[in-house]
Amino acid sequence: MSSWGSAVKISVFGESHGKGIGVVIDGLPAGVPLDMDKIYMQMSRRAPGKDKTATPRLEKDIPDIISGVLDNKTTGAPLCAVISNTNTRSGDYGNIMSCPRPGHADFTGNIRYNGFNDISGGGHFSGRLTAPIVFAGAVCRQILEKKGLRIAAHIASIGNICDSRFDPVNIPDELCDRLNVSTFALIDESKETEMRELVEECRMSLDSIGGTVECAVKGMPAGAGSPMFYGIEGVISSIVFGIPAVKGIEFGAGFAASEMRGSENNDEFYYDGDTVKTRTNNHGGILGGISSGMPVIFRAALKPTPSIGRKQKTVDLVKHENTELEIHGRHDPCIVPRAVPVIEAAAAIAVVNLLAQVNML
Amino acid sequence: MSSWGSAVKISVFGESHGKGIGVVIDGLPAGVPLDMDKIYMQMSRRAPGKDKTATPRLEKDIPDIISGVLDNKTTGAPLCAVISNTNTRSGDYGNIMSCPRPGHADFTGNIRYNGFNDISGGGHFSGRLTAPIVFAGAVCRQILEKKGLRIAAHIASIGNICDSRFDPVNIPDELCDRLNVSTFALIDESKETEMRELVEECRMSLDSIGGTVECAVKGMPAGAGSPMFYGIEGVISSIVFGIPAVKGIEFGAGFAASEMRGSENNDEFYYDGDTVKTRTNNHGGILGGISSGMPVIFRAALKPTPSIGRKQKTVDLVKHENTELEIHGRHDPCIVPRAVPVIEAAAAIAVVNLLAQVNML
Amino acid sequence: MSSWGSAVKISVFGESHGKGIGVVIDGLPAGVPLDMDKIYMQMSRRAPGKDKTATPRLEKDIPDIISGVLDNKTTGAPLCAVISNTNTRSGDYGNIMSCPRPGHADFTGNIRYNGFNDISGGGHFSGRLTAPIVFAGAVCRQILEKKGLRIAAHIASIGNICDSRFDPVNIPDELCDRLNVSTFALIDESKETEMRELVEECRMSLDSIGGTVECAVKGMPAGAGSPMFYGIEGVISSIVFGIPAVKGIEFGAGFAASEMRGSENNDEFYYDGDTVKTRTNNHGGILGGISSGMPVIFRAALKPTPSIGRKQKTVDLVKHENTELEIHGRHDPCIVPRAVPVIEAAAAIAVVNLLAQVNML
Amino acid sequence: MSSWGSAVKISVFGESHGKGIGVVIDGLPAGVPLDMDKIYMQMSRRAPGKDKTATPRLEKDIPDIISGVLDNKTTGAPLCAVISNTNTRSGDYGNIMSCPRPGHADFTGNIRYNGFNDISGGGHFSGRLTAPIVFAGAVCRQILEKKGLRIAAHIASIGNICDSRFDPVNIPDELCDRLNVSTFALIDESKETEMRELVEECRMSLDSIGGTVECAVKGMPAGAGSPMFYGIEGVISSIVFGIPAVKGIEFGAGFAASEMRGSENNDEFYYDGDTVKTRTNNHGGILGGISSGMPVIFRAALKPTPSIGRKQKTVDLVKHENTELEIHGRHDPCIVPRAVPVIEAAAAIAVVNLLAQVNML
Repeated sequence: MSSWGSAVKISVFGESHGKGIGVVIDGLPAGVPLDMDKIYMQMSRRAPGKDKTATPRLEKDIPDIISGVLDNKTTGAPLCAVISNTNTRSGDYGNIMSCPRPGHADFTGNIRYNGFNDISGGGHFSGRLTAPIVFAGAVCRQILEKKGLRIAAHIASIGNICDSRFDPVNIPDELCDRLNVSTFALIDESKETEMRELVEECRMSLDSIGGTVECAVKGMPAGAGSPMFYGIEGVISSIVFGIPAVKGIEFGAGFAASEMRGSENNDEFYYDGDTVKTRTNNHGGILGGISSGMPVIFRAALKPTPSIGRKQKTVDLVKHENTELEIHGRHDPCIVPRAVPVIEAAAAIAVVNLLAQVNML
Repeated sequence: MSSWGSAVKISVFGESHGKGIGVVIDGLPAGVPLDMDKIYMQMSRRAPGKDKTATPRLEKDIPDIISGVLDNKTTGAPLCAVISNTNTRSGDYGNIMSCPRPGHADFTGNIRYNGFNDISGGGHFSGRLTAPIVFAGAVCRQILEKKGLRIAAHIASIGNICDSRFDPVNIPDELCDRLNVSTFALIDESKETEMRELVEECRMSLDSIGGTVECAVKGMPAGAGSPMFYGIEGVISSIVFGIPAVKGIEFGAGFAASEMRGSENNDEFYYDGDTVKTRTNNHGGILGGISSGMPVIFRAALKPTPSIGRKQKTVDLVKHENTELEIHGRHDPCIVPRAVPVIEAAAAIAVVNLLAQVNML
Repeated sequence: MSSWGSAVKISVFGESHGKGIGVVIDGLPAGVPLDMDKIYMQMSRRAPGKDKTATPRLEKDIPDIISGVLDNKTTGAPLCAVISNTNTRSGDYGNIMSCPRPGHADFTGNIRYNGFNDISGGGHFSGRLTAPIVFAGAVCRQILEKKGLRIAAHIASIGNICDSRFDPVNIPDELCDRLNVSTFALIDESKETEMRELVEECRMSLDSIGGTVECAVKGMPAGAGSPMFYGIEGVISSIVFGIPAVKGIEFGAGFAASEMRGSENNDEFYYDGDTVKTRTNNHGGILGGISSGMPVIFRAALKPTPSIGRKQKTVDLVKHENTELEIHGRHDPCIVPRAVPVIEAAAAIAVVNLLAQVNML
Repeated sequence: MSSWGSAVKISVFGESHGKGIGVVIDGLPAGVPLDMDKIYMQMSRRAPGKDKTATPRLEKDIPDIISGVLDNKTTGAPLCAVISNTNTRSGDYGNIMSCPRPGHADFTGNIRYNGFNDISGGGHFSGRLTAPIVFAGAVCRQILEKKGLRIAAHIASIGNICDSRFDPVNIPDELCDRLNVSTFALIDESKETEMRELVEECRMSLDSIGGTVECAVKGMPAGAGSPMFYGIEGVISSIVFGIPAVKGIEFGAGFAASEMRGSENNDEFYYDGDTVKTRTNNHGGILGGISSGMPVIFRAALKPTPSIGRKQKTVDLVKHENTELEIHGRHDPCIVPRAVPVIEAAAAIAVVNLLAQVNML
């Protein structure tokens, strides 16, 4: 399903090379002023065509708001935004039906939908479907910023080249400001050249490369979330895995915690004035599924773009035989920079729901 | 919330030192024969007191089935099982209210529930609440086994000592048989001694240690799951993060894929007779959120048990001051062996729901 | 499914002649003091054996609270209550399997569950399953009363003998007080004799009789509910139709409004001090799915108890032939008096969810 | 909320005088051929401007399908349809903000959304929002017709003028054919003149009139639905009350059953060949929340259109005083004829979900 949420539900629709894509957001509070420029800015960060790390396909990606907004304020009724598909080239994908691309959803989509799914450009499985998520996240982010929350993400790694990590107990607003508008978001900007070189090398060798994104929610009030199945980790992961290419997620110290001793991993409490804090933040701001008031920190792992120019082995589903495939068309050699605003958006939508559950929205 | 699921919903209840714990399972198909011995076996694998890796607390953990079963077959009505708490020692935990244990949900639970939550033994946050999950999973597993699915997990690592991994394209039934009844489930059993020594060392030094669990779903038919928010990764992660101590999850190559090139990570398709397979399984049996027919593979990271005997710094919420805390009582120095059947159970509950969605149950 | 709710979910379990019945209530606010005597009082109103209108089956119906309550206050964790079945006589029902009782769920349950459902005493379809609803409602009612809401219902009619209706704009607290403890709840108590005579006449003629229940929610704040599918009417009806025998529901003027002109049915607004009110209440306190601040009023229609002593025609599903059936055993000739506290309870559970949605809980 | 459904979810959006209205339908099976002419036919039946019973506002109401359909077949991805608003006259409604119209959601919407809701033409509360429901229902109906189900409704009454009722055990296909394309759907067409005269009389006296709609689902297989809260009555009612003006619903004999004896109301079973049927159908095809195989029958009560031309008393929310209001603009004196296709549509969406739950879709 392409719907998600409880208090604030999103319902994403569209196919890559159809008429358009979009989202309905149901359950927004009324009277929230929307800064459209900020929304466009987020859409633009995700949009392709920025530089050589991305596909040269151009999409203006201007959302047309059909409902739910009056005089730039939410009305409380469902907000529907439609983004037209203006630059579709279905000819590039003519052979996919018979020969599923390795690493893509071509094969599984064909089984799931008995061959009736729209395969042009990946159809509903396309990374393009993250644009409506960015839109919905940009709306949710404005609600959260009014409450003093900031959400910021950065490219934590591309291949084995790593950015610095967030200081998990202290995330300056200025850093959030900078990351929130960047199209190649890094804490340590000196890593950009090296990362771009790696991506370019992959592009030149008709290959692609994966990476990780780290995201922080700053200002998360203590006491949101729930034990067991509506814990913050479960809620965030259930939306983040909706982003194509995400294959792993970890909170706080995450997998590294699995090699730690309790005495290392436990974050001791102390009073900072009247506020209970921890000096370290291996718990990623979450204990028992509930926020501690420390920044919520998570990292998502993205696999390398499966569309690569190299010849690959696959099957011909029509002829029932093994075959080879060369994918033409326009593809990102590295999806990670464009995934940053998508992950920020998913986190914003998740947090809006988490706060609503405990009457903090 | 402590409820999870769509077609088959579980609703877990109970507190560690209250009258009992249990689960309601709603939406089970009718007429499923239940092998109670197999259910007890799974409960017993999770139960404490087995050996020195676990807390010496003894619980018989015999579920009392209140409803939903007649003549050992499901009736289709909600199945409720209650497990009495027979061995409670609330005196051990008398100081928790004022001084939250580092790494525990004591602090966040106190904020979330305004101090009204039951703190004895961790209350509803206790690892003991995984017993009802194991029960529900054992029921779901019997449904899946009738359909030729097998779910098996093992201790993938304790600290930095690693077991072998599943061969992700070939998981022998005999291995599943062995793992499914083991209380210290390893593929390479030669690692047991080393792992136990590490755990014992932690225990002797009043410390604890984390680890990872790897789980495979064998026989998963192709075509289950959905794009976006009801993808297999999202569904499994949303229940697995309901297990206390889980701080990360990855599917297939997972975080390792983030360092790979597309040419390495892509799993090429081939025909094995009439069946489309992949020779490698970096995709963990999931493409576009949908099963490919290859084994579904995931790994969960568990943090070290936060309850350690060492003196730790914390706050006194009553006196509003920094203080120190020594935790007495019975605690597992390593939760990982007992987490194995819990993760198998969570996977079984998730897969039953995934199959129901596509009319394959 | 036997689960209902969003912010506060109930999950009902049990079968009439099994070990027990009960409910898990998930999502309750923490710290709500529970007056157990008031809960027992509500349970007792629904319990059979009160008088000749009801089945002589005796059930003590004392709920055993397994979890979620500490020192008589809710902990915020799921509250599970189990009511043991102490007085089961499965022998009375031996022939139901083959010969479905007219008007009962025997036939449809048999199809739905492929013959595996527990048929003794109606199994999960039994009216006895309303006891857990009354329990859950009694808990929710205590939350609502703290916020100044009152919920009261009465026997609006038995057969064609009608009680007075609520004055829909003015429901005195004293009336609520009286109705809330009555086992034969009437506004105009002079109707009791006539109604009891009708029920007795039905009993003597081996027959049964239907009726209606009217329910009011007093003190409902304006602004709860939503347009379209989470409107108050939709939410209340979706739980009220979960009560066996309910075949109709109407809000405010309801079906009578279908014969009215707009000029008659419209309730004009006026200021009563600073509060906007209406002088009439044909809208039943609900406009556009949202509460107006006037009392919410609805009526539910209950069919006559299908278990009657007269010989009836039915089929023999085993012999595949038409046959006749005589039902023995203990049955209420009129379920309406006992349905009153059940409908109050369902309303309370619905209203708790409606208020939670708009942060008014 | 404006979202509804489980296996097949609809998410309705739009405001009466905004850019447009529409719906996302998520979870449709793939490969369903859509007959667009049949969809337009249903849209057209609901559209205003047909005759003097309806508002003269003209809307072409042609849905623009943005996604989810390829070569006239569903792709399995979410289907989004947008209907543009072409004929908006917001000037007519200039005074609503301050003076809520009696019987409308103006007052409650203002409270619920703190005055930020779009009030032009009723905004999201407008009856115009039933157009997307009709669209979604027309899609669902085509799925159901492939499985041999028919859904038909008629004007059961306008004011106190009644149409004949369905013969609840025998609903001819020809009758369904005729009702399904009618804009003034009656079983006994001789009642049309009298009904139209009553409506015209109300129109001329600046008044309006209510009515009832009866709906039948023919071919419903036995065994769909569930006991308790996912029973057919609860599912259908929860969507039908999403239709503005509906204030009551009854299934089978409904409220009339409340005056019956069990011996009258019980429908005796018999074998018709191999099929178990009932000779009467007071149970409306539903026992214990589950379908019996007999036609599912329900009736909905619609209040008179609250917009009437007569001067009415109300309050001025700005001036905080009592005042009077005269509503100008275009309004249906009777909504009932146009509600018929809306109720058919809601029933179709409900039944698609009910069948999906039991793997019958």
